[in-house]
Amino acid sequence: MSPDIETLIQKISRLPGLGPRSARRIVIHLIRNREQSLEPLLQNMDHVFKNVQVCPACFNIDTFSDVCSICSDKKRRQDVICIVENVADLWAIERTSCFGGQYHVLKGLLSSLEGQGPEFLMLEELQKRCHENSVTEIIIALSATVEGQTTEHYIKSFFKNKDIKITSLARGIPVGGELDYMDDGTLFAAFSARG
Amino acid sequence: MSPDIETLIQKISRLPGLGPRSARRIVIHLIRNREQSLEPLLQNMDHVFKNVQVCPACFNIDTFSDVCSICSDKKRRQDVICIVENVADLWAIERTSCFGGQYHVLKGLLSSLEGQGPEFLMLEELQKRCHENSVTEIIIALSATVEGQTTEHYIKSFFKNKDIKITSLARGIPVGGELDYMDDGTLFAAFSARG
Repeated sequence: MSPDIETLIQKISRLPGLGPRSARRIVIHLIRNREQSLEPLLQNMDHVFKNVQVCPACFNIDTFSDVCSICSDKKRRQDVICIVENVADLWAIERTSCFGGQYHVLKGLLSSLEGQGPEFLMLEELQKRCHENSVTEIIIALSATVEGQTTEHYIKSFFKNKDIKITSLARGIPVGGELDYMDDGTLFAAFSARG
Repeated sequence: MSPDIETLIQKISRLPGLGPRSARRIVIHLIRNREQSLEPLLQNMDHVFKNVQVCPACFNIDTFSDVCSICSDKKRRQDVICIVENVADLWAIERTSCFGGQYHVLKGLLSSLEGQGPEFLMLEELQKRCHENSVTEIIIALSATVEGQTTEHYIKSFFKNKDIKITSLARGIPVGGELDYMDDGTLFAAFSARG
């Protein structure tokens, strides 16, 4: 194997979810299907990564010219903003089509371990945007982890005395979940929020 | 999500071993680590796929100028040729460093289901090469599957009346394998080839 191919396998094996074995399979697949699989992939990658940028309004990552496709979509509600941790979470919510408002994408959650302070939340920018668009509700859609909860509390206290309703996703039994497999925290949350 | 990114995710999810979820993770990782992870990967891919070619002697796929690095390595034995199904198998054998001769890489195994006939084995080319390099042994290193065995028989009958020793990899209990987990075929092969 030439050093070029070896380096390529190494680089691909460092992508999330992949290892040396799967990287080798992918490289062999790409080499074998050069015309059908590789050339279009390379062009597509090149195009996306030359055009991708962070939306100045909601910090979503997308390919666009001015603001991102969600911010520029006039059919979406302008008065509700949903706070998500990252673009993956935004995509997950968009796939369900259950939310038709705007987003605010954090750079990360508050985490003293990883040195992520309040500047990762860009709440001043969010506050300014809320004021300009007369936002009435902010939905906090963060993971139910320690970092997610800490961040949620911080955001709630930041918007405490402002005239905006702050809500967060319901905690409870996931759809299809069996009771005796649930942990104590989930059961407790499901009982407290019963209705 | 812009259509560009969606197409990219689709293309990546079609690579072997990946699905839509892992493709999304990879794309987000690449977008986020544009300088460190993406630019070098793109350059590397582009370089490899512009330079990769099939070796005219052994049909190995590699980046080289004249013949592949194995064929041009004068330290390797010229009188032993190992037949492998594909480049992945060649790489696997090279990783163990247990073989120091030449290779002959098939385009595929004989398979009537997939319409792969004897032209996939390129045995005339192999025979010519054996003659030119006065090869004394051909090692058949094919998988112990039905297609592998059929191909092995075909190769053996092709070289029947020529003055070349044809051997194939030993069948038996894999190292670390427990007896009571072995299938009948493996046990039978291990008993027949005991020594």
